[in-house]
Amino acid sequence: MTDQTFGATGAFPEALAQAAGLTDELLGKLLAVPPGPEARVVAAMRYSALAPGKRLRPFLVLASAQLFAVAQRSALQVAAAIEMVHAYSLIHDDLPAMDDSDLRRGRPTCHKQFDEATAVLAGDGLLTYAFEVLAHPDTHGDPMVRCELVTALAQAAGTQGMVGGQMIDLLAESDRSLDIGAITRLQRLKTGALIAFSCEAGAILGKAAPELRAALRGYAHDLGLAFQIADDLLDVEGSAAETGKPIGGDAAAGKATFVSILGVERARSQAKVLVQQAVAHLDLFEKKAELLRQAAQFVVNRRA
Amino acid sequence: MTDQTFGATGAFPEALAQAAGLTDELLGKLLAVPPGPEARVVAAMRYSALAPGKRLRPFLVLASAQLFAVAQRSALQVAAAIEMVHAYSLIHDDLPAMDDSDLRRGRPTCHKQFDEATAVLAGDGLLTYAFEVLAHPDTHGDPMVRCELVTALAQAAGTQGMVGGQMIDLLAESDRSLDIGAITRLQRLKTGALIAFSCEAGAILGKAAPELRAALRGYAHDLGLAFQIADDLLDVEGSAAETGKPIGGDAAAGKATFVSILGVERARSQAKVLVQQAVAHLDLFEKKAELLRQAAQFVVNRRA
Repeated sequence: MTDQTFGATGAFPEALAQAAGLTDELLGKLLAVPPGPEARVVAAMRYSALAPGKRLRPFLVLASAQLFAVAQRSALQVAAAIEMVHAYSLIHDDLPAMDDSDLRRGRPTCHKQFDEATAVLAGDGLLTYAFEVLAHPDTHGDPMVRCELVTALAQAAGTQGMVGGQMIDLLAESDRSLDIGAITRLQRLKTGALIAFSCEAGAILGKAAPELRAALRGYAHDLGLAFQIADDLLDVEGSAAETGKPIGGDAAAGKATFVSILGVERARSQAKVLVQQAVAHLDLFEKKAELLRQAAQFVVNRRA
Repeated sequence: MTDQTFGATGAFPEALAQAAGLTDELLGKLLAVPPGPEARVVAAMRYSALAPGKRLRPFLVLASAQLFAVAQRSALQVAAAIEMVHAYSLIHDDLPAMDDSDLRRGRPTCHKQFDEATAVLAGDGLLTYAFEVLAHPDTHGDPMVRCELVTALAQAAGTQGMVGGQMIDLLAESDRSLDIGAITRLQRLKTGALIAFSCEAGAILGKAAPELRAALRGYAHDLGLAFQIADDLLDVEGSAAETGKPIGGDAAAGKATFVSILGVERARSQAKVLVQQAVAHLDLFEKKAELLRQAAQFVVNRRA
């Protein structure tokens, strides 16, 4: 995989597969299992970070970095770091004290495959390692850029991002009274912030002008919400075989979702509107942003 | 507390109290509880990070930074970040799936005071925030220094540090067969790495020459082990009122410790030898390192 140039064919499905292959290759190297008894926690980190998945976030990093002619090696470091943070969030979310899930991406969750204590530590280890990867000189020659990446990832993953969103989500369990504004904010923090960082990372790496960075943020914001609505629709309409997790879980848990509030039809049309909005933010980039446009269509049309 | 100059009197007990006061003041500001439902996780982070404690690690940052005339504001940022990482590690270690502790520093543990899910997230939030604080321009004007701090903290907290040590500790539960080499390595990773970073941080902030940085690392390495032996001795000899946690916990759990392997007398003399070694590393700094010398004596003589 090493010599592949991401997005060379201009077709989204191939670019997504390339992003996955290249990122997994790097993750495999970064998460080499060491000798000694601590091998167990690294094996658990590896199990979860390399679990089957679309690798949408790594794709977004590579595609946005390409807009600014960033070296692929730099973008891949960030892609690997984001995938580590994504994997950590899934490990902790799946814990018995949280969503208590046994199945993830079609395989036993980390605490089922290993044990609960190892899963807590594996999540901690992945989160920690992500920052080490971002701060490494391989990520960018300019330490100011590396600091900006650390700051932006910490904000996306912290209490004003993923951790905050997960807290709100836990408090909202079984709360059907959430309105659309509250759900939107919840999802913007819980899943949107990391997706937004994936797109902004390309602009940070490329030292892009503020208006270009803002355009990517706008794209990512709309894309993130469309992604979540599609996820809610899949929870209702998908099959367990396709999504790799039990279907109807949110509805059974009595959770308010975009679909429970808007209904299937309005949710679907809302997702389409969001995709149009997302794509409109890319006008500034003209033809160069074709992959990101295709990604937006994919997000609402995906079956898993 | 703001205008205090750390260590102005040259006396260790006052300097330790100053470090605690100054660090807690900054932690209080950094962990301001936001509006919105995510307030709960920030309240839990605050509860644990501001729990009563000696703040030995912040003291070590401030005292080592002072050797290189680093601005107190810079050192305090690092002190706050390290204390966040220390607090996160205690929150996760105390979880039912890990050590299952109800009491910490004389108060209910985070998952007892809040709930398990909130405690997992509070730990995650503190770890994440620590890196944001290190990458902030307030920490140092030179982004290269900030990157070095991020790297060093991630290494101290990750699988080759705290997380790895905790994994080994979990696997060694009830394993009385560990030899002194294995216990030493376990403790070097689990508690030693963060203590070593606390001392090295001063050298990083001060862009110290390699031999001075190495001297501080040597000091911290010996200090960390002496600290752990003293902890094991307190577990056997201390009172619950003094340590704020149940006594004899390790022995009851059948855990191998320095004391179970060496016995009380040899453990105590080993701790004293380590303190002498630690202090010898400071010769290079002559009189300037007096506070660090006093700290080493304190570590083995403390009662809690």
